[in-house]
Amino acid sequence: MLPTELTHLKDTQNEPDHRKIPIDRVGVKNLRFPMRILDKANVEQHTIASVALTVDLPEHFKGTHMSRFVEALNECGTELHIDRVHELLGMLATRLHADCAHVDFDFPFFIEKSAPVTGKKGLLDYNIRFNATLQKGVFDFIATVIVPVATLCPCSKSISERGAHNQRGEVTFAVRSSAPIWIEDLIQLVEQSASCELYSVLKRPDEKAVTERAYDNPVFVEDLVRNIAQRANREESILWYKVEAENFESIHNHNAYALVEHTKPAATSHAS
Amino acid sequence: MLPTELTHLKDTQNEPDHRKIPIDRVGVKNLRFPMRILDKANVEQHTIASVALTVDLPEHFKGTHMSRFVEALNECGTELHIDRVHELLGMLATRLHADCAHVDFDFPFFIEKSAPVTGKKGLLDYNIRFNATLQKGVFDFIATVIVPVATLCPCSKSISERGAHNQRGEVTFAVRSSAPIWIEDLIQLVEQSASCELYSVLKRPDEKAVTERAYDNPVFVEDLVRNIAQRANREESILWYKVEAENFESIHNHNAYALVEHTKPAATSHAS
Amino acid sequence: MLPTELTHLKDTQNEPDHRKIPIDRVGVKNLRFPMRILDKANVEQHTIASVALTVDLPEHFKGTHMSRFVEALNECGTELHIDRVHELLGMLATRLHADCAHVDFDFPFFIEKSAPVTGKKGLLDYNIRFNATLQKGVFDFIATVIVPVATLCPCSKSISERGAHNQRGEVTFAVRSSAPIWIEDLIQLVEQSASCELYSVLKRPDEKAVTERAYDNPVFVEDLVRNIAQRANREESILWYKVEAENFESIHNHNAYALVEHTKPAATSHAS
Amino acid sequence: MLPTELTHLKDTQNEPDHRKIPIDRVGVKNLRFPMRILDKANVEQHTIASVALTVDLPEHFKGTHMSRFVEALNECGTELHIDRVHELLGMLATRLHADCAHVDFDFPFFIEKSAPVTGKKGLLDYNIRFNATLQKGVFDFIATVIVPVATLCPCSKSISERGAHNQRGEVTFAVRSSAPIWIEDLIQLVEQSASCELYSVLKRPDEKAVTERAYDNPVFVEDLVRNIAQRANREESILWYKVEAENFESIHNHNAYALVEHTKPAATSHAS
Repeated sequence: MLPTELTHLKDTQNEPDHRKIPIDRVGVKNLRFPMRILDKANVEQHTIASVALTVDLPEHFKGTHMSRFVEALNECGTELHIDRVHELLGMLATRLHADCAHVDFDFPFFIEKSAPVTGKKGLLDYNIRFNATLQKGVFDFIATVIVPVATLCPCSKSISERGAHNQRGEVTFAVRSSAPIWIEDLIQLVEQSASCELYSVLKRPDEKAVTERAYDNPVFVEDLVRNIAQRANREESILWYKVEAENFESIHNHNAYALVEHTKPAATSHAS
Repeated sequence: MLPTELTHLKDTQNEPDHRKIPIDRVGVKNLRFPMRILDKANVEQHTIASVALTVDLPEHFKGTHMSRFVEALNECGTELHIDRVHELLGMLATRLHADCAHVDFDFPFFIEKSAPVTGKKGLLDYNIRFNATLQKGVFDFIATVIVPVATLCPCSKSISERGAHNQRGEVTFAVRSSAPIWIEDLIQLVEQSASCELYSVLKRPDEKAVTERAYDNPVFVEDLVRNIAQRANREESILWYKVEAENFESIHNHNAYALVEHTKPAATSHAS
Repeated sequence: MLPTELTHLKDTQNEPDHRKIPIDRVGVKNLRFPMRILDKANVEQHTIASVALTVDLPEHFKGTHMSRFVEALNECGTELHIDRVHELLGMLATRLHADCAHVDFDFPFFIEKSAPVTGKKGLLDYNIRFNATLQKGVFDFIATVIVPVATLCPCSKSISERGAHNQRGEVTFAVRSSAPIWIEDLIQLVEQSASCELYSVLKRPDEKAVTERAYDNPVFVEDLVRNIAQRANREESILWYKVEAENFESIHNHNAYALVEHTKPAATSHAS
Repeated sequence: MLPTELTHLKDTQNEPDHRKIPIDRVGVKNLRFPMRILDKANVEQHTIASVALTVDLPEHFKGTHMSRFVEALNECGTELHIDRVHELLGMLATRLHADCAHVDFDFPFFIEKSAPVTGKKGLLDYNIRFNATLQKGVFDFIATVIVPVATLCPCSKSISERGAHNQRGEVTFAVRSSAPIWIEDLIQLVEQSASCELYSVLKRPDEKAVTERAYDNPVFVEDLVRNIAQRANREESILWYKVEAENFESIHNHNAYALVEHTKPAATSHAS
């Protein structure tokens, strides 16, 4: 047991505040935490998330209690699953007496891929984000996959006698859905929309295959976001999406960029 | 003059598109450009901006013309002034046949400050953002200042027999206003709301002064955003603001964070 | 089996080169890979490393075979142990016909800490680096821990009537040793040399304790590197060290920095 | 004049230290400062440098005087010229009673380029570093240019029936020389060694030209560093160089990397 003088330390945060300014979000950011995430091929994989946890604060409280955010995360366990995220939001709202709680997780994710001709196996890395909110009991969940791809310029191919400039690009694809979607499926949807997907191991016959596949499938950054939008439109469980593509142009030192955001007509936010 | 075969190169971008997906934003990003900005004390200062220029693209065009964005920026001159930004948006909308154009500028900005006791002069650096949109003739302009400050924890001061943990923090303060506001005035508003402002040169008498000033003005990250909100509420020309504060806590390896966003009741977006 | 035309693809890398310029290092960088590392408290923990793998290339070869680096990493397994690192270097040297091979691993590492008064448990994150070289059979291994700490300024404390500026700092401590050293021990050596160590969970009695501990142990960035150097000098198994400290000053927008590098007189590089 | 109690504040840094540990480098880092640099085409250009200033500290002093570094920089003026750098080092050594002083400047630099066919003008941005040391009167100066380029893979071209993967790469080329060298000349040396140089504005005839030029000049990352080494070997004024190339591979999510470092036989360090 702690001595009395320590248990009776003044609670400055709990003092009244007279500025009459409610705070939209207050909490912790850039907290790294080891976690586990479900994985279609191997049941689960280990990852390390960068975490932000925030709540709203009514105008009459001077401050929030920062240590409770980290305690809640510790108690909630290390599983990065939509149900655990929902539970964590509930704990934050309850313990911090908040109407609204937000959690954000950014983490790397790996998929084992087989090279297209030789079948050589290798891991490709992606960045994933989960952004979730619980507002007066209403749960909102956005899953985002950040996917590196190859893009080959249709204009360059069309006007040049030989070759075509191509480059690594990065797609950021965020969705709200009516049912949980595998991260792997979102990634595949993006990779199928590019000139070619990336691999970590490619032997010469594979390199020939991906070079020719990219040359045969030229896409502008505009085509890339439209191809993804088209596939997302067909995917019934996707209610809303935002897709951004950024090409690290091999002919410029700046990037080409495109964005499409779309809410489907009958869309309602996914509630657990 | 170019030979005919070069002037008649196929314009792939101009081809029709049948996917029926309009693109919200397309253009260039991460383009660095040397610019000049008005400066209260010295007429102007030179800076280097990271620039993004985008427009919308109707569903029936296959692609935009990326080189025209860079050409427009080149022609518009190097002055980072709200009137030039408006003009650049007009050029982009016209030349790219767009309903909506966006420009984003991120750049460092310097203010010469005198140390509080010795008066020693030194430059402090800030990051500034201009985000502007022209949508069917309606101009929207957001100025953002990113201001490093010192914050001293009221709880730590209140419960500790000696000392109090303090740290560098960073405030991101964005405003829409009914009239142009000096960057210097936005920065000052933020600095007055912290435990203490920062300096690049401090001699010992100055270090004593800033140490004691911070100790006498403890602020939580919540206090910091509320102090700024209070000052922004009083500033009539500010119509909307969003203020975020992030403390690089000296007792944790994660950050404390708070956000307040507010639109004033009678606010209308600033049109030039 | 692959068709003949694919197994007979020209091997451009194997062609002779006539520029007479040997290459010091060639290989792959920024490859992310999930790994496991020994952990004093829990046997092992999962992490994700950013990996660079390089070898030298004699002047008469046109190119190296990039895919073999990734294959070797895949085959070598996911254990981040000094013996596995040695083995991987051997595989790279053999398969790429190189005299010298280098591997670099950067990865996060977690330690569970108990808050100093309440004993509340929480994970603190660190960045670790392994840099290893095998040159004509001689193995060299450097372990680096990057440790966030709190530093309180002795000058500010001495001249001020109340308070003292303090901040988060970051120590980068690299060692060569005659025997394997636990990462946890290197981190502890650094944390004991600062004004106070950091925690992820601190309740009010803990916050009081760390505030007062930092105030009672002021260190300049110079003191911090010297305290670490002193402890490293006493640690017999450490043969060479380089320690850098960078303070994110709470009174400036720039950082204070110090570096000490030292090879002990009788030092010989650690060979497995 | 300051009151006596402020001019007599205790100088903790000047106190003796008994740990017997000399410090190799101590000073300030990440200080941003607006500067001007000579420019072959336009006399000079304005830029913003990130600056590190350090000195050695003998074992008998407890600390250095951090404010003097920033004061010296302020007094030395804003010209980023080798002679000013030398002068600044002298001021640091004198004022801080040091045997050895180091300064590091990192800054963006722009060159106006004409598109290869249409001649359209646009600015390309580069990062430059100056690293200089004055040790017991001996001046050492390293200039580094960081140059984005396009690289097209010779293997991919050779084995594929159509196209060839290419990408943006980045070359870091550092030199010591017997006479000042224009930044522009170092950049040109690098750009001539790649598959193609980059531009900010390219119209369709230009895009055709750079696509075909890259296809006609395939280079591995190994070829790129060797081409640069070959040119540097021929340049008499270059005494030492280190060249690194990193390709942001369009077929992988990791990078290809190569390094060559070379000291010419009769090389002596450039002294002003």
